[in-house]
Amino acid sequence: MMPTNEDLLARIEALEARATAAEDYRVLMNLQAAYGYYVDKGLWDKAADLFAEEGTLEIAGRGVYVGRERVREYLKCLPEYRDGVIFNHMQLQPVLHIDSEAGTAKGRWRTLMMVGIMEAEVGRWGEATYENTYVRERGKWRIASLHGIINFYCEYDEGWHKGGVPLLRSTEGISPDRPQTFEYEAHPKAVIAPFHYDEV
Amino acid sequence: MMPTNEDLLARIEALEARATAAEDYRVLMNLQAAYGYYVDKGLWDKAADLFAEEGTLEIAGRGVYVGRERVREYLKCLPEYRDGVIFNHMQLQPVLHIDSEAGTAKGRWRTLMMVGIMEAEVGRWGEATYENTYVRERGKWRIASLHGIINFYCEYDEGWHKGGVPLLRSTEGISPDRPQTFEYEAHPKAVIAPFHYDEV
Amino acid sequence: MMPTNEDLLARIEALEARATAAEDYRVLMNLQAAYGYYVDKGLWDKAADLFAEEGTLEIAGRGVYVGRERVREYLKCLPEYRDGVIFNHMQLQPVLHIDSEAGTAKGRWRTLMMVGIMEAEVGRWGEATYENTYVRERGKWRIASLHGIINFYCEYDEGWHKGGVPLLRSTEGISPDRPQTFEYEAHPKAVIAPFHYDEV
Repeated sequence: MMPTNEDLLARIEALEARATAAEDYRVLMNLQAAYGYYVDKGLWDKAADLFAEEGTLEIAGRGVYVGRERVREYLKCLPEYRDGVIFNHMQLQPVLHIDSEAGTAKGRWRTLMMVGIMEAEVGRWGEATYENTYVRERGKWRIASLHGIINFYCEYDEGWHKGGVPLLRSTEGISPDRPQTFEYEAHPKAVIAPFHYDEV
Repeated sequence: MMPTNEDLLARIEALEARATAAEDYRVLMNLQAAYGYYVDKGLWDKAADLFAEEGTLEIAGRGVYVGRERVREYLKCLPEYRDGVIFNHMQLQPVLHIDSEAGTAKGRWRTLMMVGIMEAEVGRWGEATYENTYVRERGKWRIASLHGIINFYCEYDEGWHKGGVPLLRSTEGISPDRPQTFEYEAHPKAVIAPFHYDEV
Repeated sequence: MMPTNEDLLARIEALEARATAAEDYRVLMNLQAAYGYYVDKGLWDKAADLFAEEGTLEIAGRGVYVGRERVREYLKCLPEYRDGVIFNHMQLQPVLHIDSEAGTAKGRWRTLMMVGIMEAEVGRWGEATYENTYVRERGKWRIASLHGIINFYCEYDEGWHKGGVPLLRSTEGISPDRPQTFEYEAHPKAVIAPFHYDEV
C-alpha cells in the first residue's frame, strides 16, 4: 500500500533528526580538536571561547573553575607560548555519545602531551584522559565541562619506567572555585578515569 | 512534473540507508576507541566483550585466537594494570570502509604504544598497524577480527634508531588456535601491513 | 495542514545534500589517513595519486610543488623505506570544514613523526601542523593542497627541551616550482600555523 503524505512526513522528520546528529558529530569532533590547537600555542582567549557560558574546567587535580570567564583566567595562568617552549596537547581517540534532540553530548578523549621549556631545562611527556560534556548553546556546541585526568607525566630524560612527575595540586596565581571531583594520583599510581558509558 | 508518493518513498528509503551508514561510522569510531581505553587499563572483560561471538584476535605474530571467549583468555594473559605499570594503546588514524546493508566493515588503524613496568625496569615505545573487520551482530557492531601488525617496539632508553625489540612469538600461559596469517618481523626489518583497500 | 508533494520533495532534497555532506566527511577522513599510511612506508606513487591533477605540496619551508606529477617527483626524493628505516607520519586531530555543494574542503591536521635511519644513526621526533585543502574531481575527493608547517624536529637522544633540528631548506635532487608561501623557523623559534577558520 502506498504511504500517505502523513507517513512520508513522519519518515522525513525522523531523517532530519538523524541528519542533525551526523552534523553534531562533525562539529564536536572539530570543537575538541580546535581546543587542542589553541592550547598548543597559548591562544587562551580562543580556547576559553569554546566553553559554554557556565562551562567548567578541571585538570590534573587542581580543582574546578566555573564559568567561561573563570576558565579564561585559569588558562591565562598557564605557560606563555614563546621561543623555546613546546606545549603540545594532541587531542585523540574520541568516544562520543550525542543526544542531538537534548543538545547535550559526552565525550571521552585522550591527550598526548609534549611539554618543554628550554630555559628551565624542562622536557616532559604526558598523557591524560578527558571525560568531557558538551552543550548546544544559542545554536552552537560548546564545552560544558572539560575534565582532564592525568595518567602520567614523566621526564623526557627518564621515561615512564623510571617514575612519574607528581601532580601539581595548585596553579600559581589562581585558586579554583570548587574542590576537585575525582581523587587520584598519577603514575606511578594506577589511575582509571571514570567512563561515561557502560556499552558502546 | 511533481513526483508521486512512490517516487518520494524510494528517495526516502535511499536516505534511510545513508543515515544508517553515517550512524554506523560513529559507532565504529567509538568501538575501536573504546577497545583502546580498555586495553590501556587491563579491563580485559570489557575489551573481550567488544568482540563478535566468533571474533578473532591476532597480534604481533603470536597466532590467531578464535572466538570471544578465547580472545578473553588471551587478553587475560597480558600484563595486569597496577601501580608502576603503563600499558597505553592509543587508537589512531582510521581508514574505515563500511557496508551498512551487509552489516560488515573493514578498518585500518594504528596504535601508538607506551609500555612500562617499573619494577622490571622495562620502558618501551611501540607502534602497530591494525587491519580489522567488524560485523553487526544482533544489532550491535562488534570486532569480527583484530589483526595487529607491529611496526616497531624499541627501548625508551635507546630509541628506534638503535634497533628494535624482536617480536615475542608466544604468550606465557596460552597457545593460539591457529598459526599467524601474516609472516613478518618488526623493525629493524621493513614491514608493510597489507591494505584492505586499493583506493580511498 | 498536510504537506504537499512539493513540500516533501524540497525537504528530501535538503536531506540528500546533508547525506552527501556526511559521506564527504568520511571520505576526507579516510583520504588524509590513507596519505599518512602511504608516506610511512615510502609508497610514493600511492601517496601522489591522492592529489588532484593540479594539487600542490608545500612542506617544511622547502617551496611549493605544483601538480600531481611534480608532487610525485618530490615524494620520490624522500628516504626510501627499507630495513632499518622508520618514517612514521601519524595523521591526527582533524578540524574539517566541507562545502559539499562546491566540492571543496579545508582541513587542519597534525602529524606526529618518528624518523629513524639506523645506518646513519639518525633518530628524531617531529610534529607538524597541516593546513590542507581538498577538491572533488571527477567524483573523487583529492588533495588540492597539502601544506605542512613543522612545529619541531628534535633528536631522540636529546629531546625538544635541548633544542630543535633546523629546517632543511632544500631537497636533494629537486627544486620547487614556487617559493614557500609561509615564512617561519621551527622550534626553538615559536611558530603558529595560520588557521583556515576563525570559529568552529
